[in-house]
Amino acid sequence: MEILGKSLVGFHDSASTADPFNAWNPASGDKIDAAFFPATPEDIDFAAKLASEAFSTYSRLSGREKASFLNRLASHLESITDLLIARAHSETALPEPRLKSETARTCNQLRLFASVIEEGSWVSARIDQAAPDRKPLPKPDIRSMLHPLGPVVVFGASNFPLAFSVAGGDTASSLAAGNPVIVKAHPAHPGTSELVGRAIRDAVRDQGLPEGVFSLLFDSGTEVGARLVQHPLVKAVAFTGSIPAGRALMDLAVRRPEPIPFYGEMGSTNPVFILPGAMAARGKEIASQLHGSFTLGSGQFCTKPGLVFLPQQNSSMNFLPELQDKVTRSPKLILLTSSIRNSYQRELQNRKGRSDLAVVAEGEQPASGPAFLAGVAVFQTDVASLLSSPDLGSEVFGPSTLLVRFSNQPELLNAARSLSGHLTATIHGTEEDLQEFSELLQILRDKVGRIVFNGYPTGVEVCHAMVHGGPYPASTDSRTTSVGSQAIFRFARPVCYQDFPDSALPAELKNSNPLKIWRMVDGNFTHCEL
Amino acid sequence: MEILGKSLVGFHDSASTADPFNAWNPASGDKIDAAFFPATPEDIDFAAKLASEAFSTYSRLSGREKASFLNRLASHLESITDLLIARAHSETALPEPRLKSETARTCNQLRLFASVIEEGSWVSARIDQAAPDRKPLPKPDIRSMLHPLGPVVVFGASNFPLAFSVAGGDTASSLAAGNPVIVKAHPAHPGTSELVGRAIRDAVRDQGLPEGVFSLLFDSGTEVGARLVQHPLVKAVAFTGSIPAGRALMDLAVRRPEPIPFYGEMGSTNPVFILPGAMAARGKEIASQLHGSFTLGSGQFCTKPGLVFLPQQNSSMNFLPELQDKVTRSPKLILLTSSIRNSYQRELQNRKGRSDLAVVAEGEQPASGPAFLAGVAVFQTDVASLLSSPDLGSEVFGPSTLLVRFSNQPELLNAARSLSGHLTATIHGTEEDLQEFSELLQILRDKVGRIVFNGYPTGVEVCHAMVHGGPYPASTDSRTTSVGSQAIFRFARPVCYQDFPDSALPAELKNSNPLKIWRMVDGNFTHCEL
Repeated sequence: MEILGKSLVGFHDSASTADPFNAWNPASGDKIDAAFFPATPEDIDFAAKLASEAFSTYSRLSGREKASFLNRLASHLESITDLLIARAHSETALPEPRLKSETARTCNQLRLFASVIEEGSWVSARIDQAAPDRKPLPKPDIRSMLHPLGPVVVFGASNFPLAFSVAGGDTASSLAAGNPVIVKAHPAHPGTSELVGRAIRDAVRDQGLPEGVFSLLFDSGTEVGARLVQHPLVKAVAFTGSIPAGRALMDLAVRRPEPIPFYGEMGSTNPVFILPGAMAARGKEIASQLHGSFTLGSGQFCTKPGLVFLPQQNSSMNFLPELQDKVTRSPKLILLTSSIRNSYQRELQNRKGRSDLAVVAEGEQPASGPAFLAGVAVFQTDVASLLSSPDLGSEVFGPSTLLVRFSNQPELLNAARSLSGHLTATIHGTEEDLQEFSELLQILRDKVGRIVFNGYPTGVEVCHAMVHGGPYPASTDSRTTSVGSQAIFRFARPVCYQDFPDSALPAELKNSNPLKIWRMVDGNFTHCEL
Repeated sequence: MEILGKSLVGFHDSASTADPFNAWNPASGDKIDAAFFPATPEDIDFAAKLASEAFSTYSRLSGREKASFLNRLASHLESITDLLIARAHSETALPEPRLKSETARTCNQLRLFASVIEEGSWVSARIDQAAPDRKPLPKPDIRSMLHPLGPVVVFGASNFPLAFSVAGGDTASSLAAGNPVIVKAHPAHPGTSELVGRAIRDAVRDQGLPEGVFSLLFDSGTEVGARLVQHPLVKAVAFTGSIPAGRALMDLAVRRPEPIPFYGEMGSTNPVFILPGAMAARGKEIASQLHGSFTLGSGQFCTKPGLVFLPQQNSSMNFLPELQDKVTRSPKLILLTSSIRNSYQRELQNRKGRSDLAVVAEGEQPASGPAFLAGVAVFQTDVASLLSSPDLGSEVFGPSTLLVRFSNQPELLNAARSLSGHLTATIHGTEEDLQEFSELLQILRDKVGRIVFNGYPTGVEVCHAMVHGGPYPASTDSRTTSVGSQAIFRFARPVCYQDFPDSALPAELKNSNPLKIWRMVDGNFTHCEL
């Protein structure tokens, strides 16, 4: 499959000849062949119009029809796995085994949403039956279910070129709910994006769907994204990336004449709390696994543990030596882009120069050169310093973490209360620790979307109960998740039908319950007919 | 119960002596005794701090404990029904039978939410069980449920002094979800607000809850509301009122350093479509009932039908004469405030002066005087005029409606497609009409929150399936409803627990399912234990 560098506007390739940009190989720092042409304002408008037209057809498809499309798309992606992995590896330097599992995950996500919409209960059907004899007024028949919102704009993320990108979770959940999607490709992996985009276009065509169900637009800057978010035909936006970029786009979305939902999954430092009992029992093991977690994917996971609270009185003789050993022996790692590398190096220099931080250990540090290389580094401070410099709690994107010593439980609880919103929090403890620090769990419940016990936050299971989100600034909408089957709820809203004849109701709400879905009938869950 | 005119800040009465304001009797135009003192910035800050402190206790109560509180509150309100109705009647001029049924509805709402949280399944518990042997990676145990957001600010509405005010649906659903509430009372019925507020305070005290669970703040202007929405300890806002006021407050909520959910239920014209078959069969009846609907509560319902599409070729000889007869014999009506009266009269004058509108009929028109009186008026135009002047589709708050003639189905569908978001749409039709105009239903599905068949949009049933919301500008968040049990979802967000021991999990997520709630376990709904 040849890479053309053209935006995919429905079934059309953009004719843009504006200043092109290239992808870069992070391992060598070299440009990768193939120029990518930014989408034009006309491309954006055309993509939005096609999407809006497609909505009237696509939104009315049955769950089974949409599921067939998503399953076909997963098969298309699998058929080009080798091509995808090779291209993604050259554009991101992520290891091939990781990219292989990310491809599998991407296909699994598509199939999970296919299974959810094929089963059909996700529409949250509710039926309250009429009571014509009720006094003083008759009770009407009221039936509600979720309907899709309209065209959705998805922003590809830099750090997951497949699972959070063109055919990633946002696209899958949006398509599953019945919404056409316009993806703004991340400029760090445009070739991967184009390959995936063509696979989606093929699936749209093979399935006989209107072309506007999917478009893919390129841009190396911010203009195309800003225009998309403000286009009147766009009805929701999903974004994964940094806090400044996410907030800027959110501000555009909510300041529109017609404000629209904006789902930004942004920065997070993912605090870890190592309680005394766990430290005594498993200090060495935790040190080793923590090192694996904060250096995974070169520390470029949004769930990377970047803040680790541990007792001042080290109840383990093994934690620190093990961590220092692991870090010192860490090779230099490749980051995704030169800009990520530069920010990371700048923040490392900044932290090294601070009097309230100490360097615990450093790995091999790269000499300057064209490749996007960085070294592992671990810092240490105490709760008082963190409380007086809350910026220490900000995300550092790359393979570094910060240990924070606490001297007693009240100090730790204070630190926990001071946290802003995060995607995750992790507690390492024995059952006794959990009882002794029970207040900690209660505090964290109000701070994050996911609380992990005796594990590591990296690795986000794609399942029905997953919550990948959290209070601001972890996300712009804590009421939702961007991973797992509940992500579909972001792109739908309830509509109710009052006193409609059975023949005019959607299948989900008909008396006979032809889809055999779970419904709430007069307040009780049932999958029976009325 | 004496009315003191002081804000209720937890269990404290505000000491403000700032410029007081009064309520007005709309029937006489006279001031009502008792001065109300605007809350001070200190009151606001104190109320927010109390609410935030109360959250850590109140949010952890069981559904049964919160239900007991809501039921007690309903009983307290019932015990002062006569007092409430007398005061509300003097402040709003709404008829006593209406206020009696509104009080009953308010208590029913509280009891509905009590039953929902006592049953407990509303938390949407989901459990995905671990698979330690899964390859390549073990599958963790993931369990999620909804948790409350934190202190919620509720704005009382002018037009429902009880059901959408201090102890109305927003307060009931917020308290049910586990969030303390700070109400900004509507200045048109401050005495009613204080009576209800004291009943809530009593229920808080009787129940042994922390005082910050509820506060009530007065203000005749916009400053207190604006400060509340921007207070860092406030985590969500619910508002019912006009588009300009709602949008201004929403802008404050989303521009905060930490943006928060803003639920504004704003303006709506609630289009009605009378299809040819229904017109032929029931023209006279529809005219009579439509008149009842758009004049109900002096036309001050947010669901008032303000735009009525009907065939150019009048298939009924009886519709127009009946409507004209009903309107002509309509007495002048009392509006809620002088400002509503002035806006209504201004808009009537404006409409009478337009060349693209004709007056169909007018009721008795008031002479100028101190009372807040207005006359019923019906106008008429055609689809072409509506399409060229979309402002004709805007809400006129008061007892007036606009008939819009359509000449054929394509023209009607065009008009439907041009609509902005509304709370409701209504179709009057035979089953044959519904088949012939099936596209209309599909279009309306994307425009509103509720579609009514052969009925009238006024009257919003409080039940599980109700959707009272809709695309902007009907509401600021179409993914939600402000009426019915689904309103509780506005004030909660999902949190998931990974690999926690059973003893540390909330009751809703424990293996034994001690609350016997419905849960999704590995993708299947069940109320069994694991």
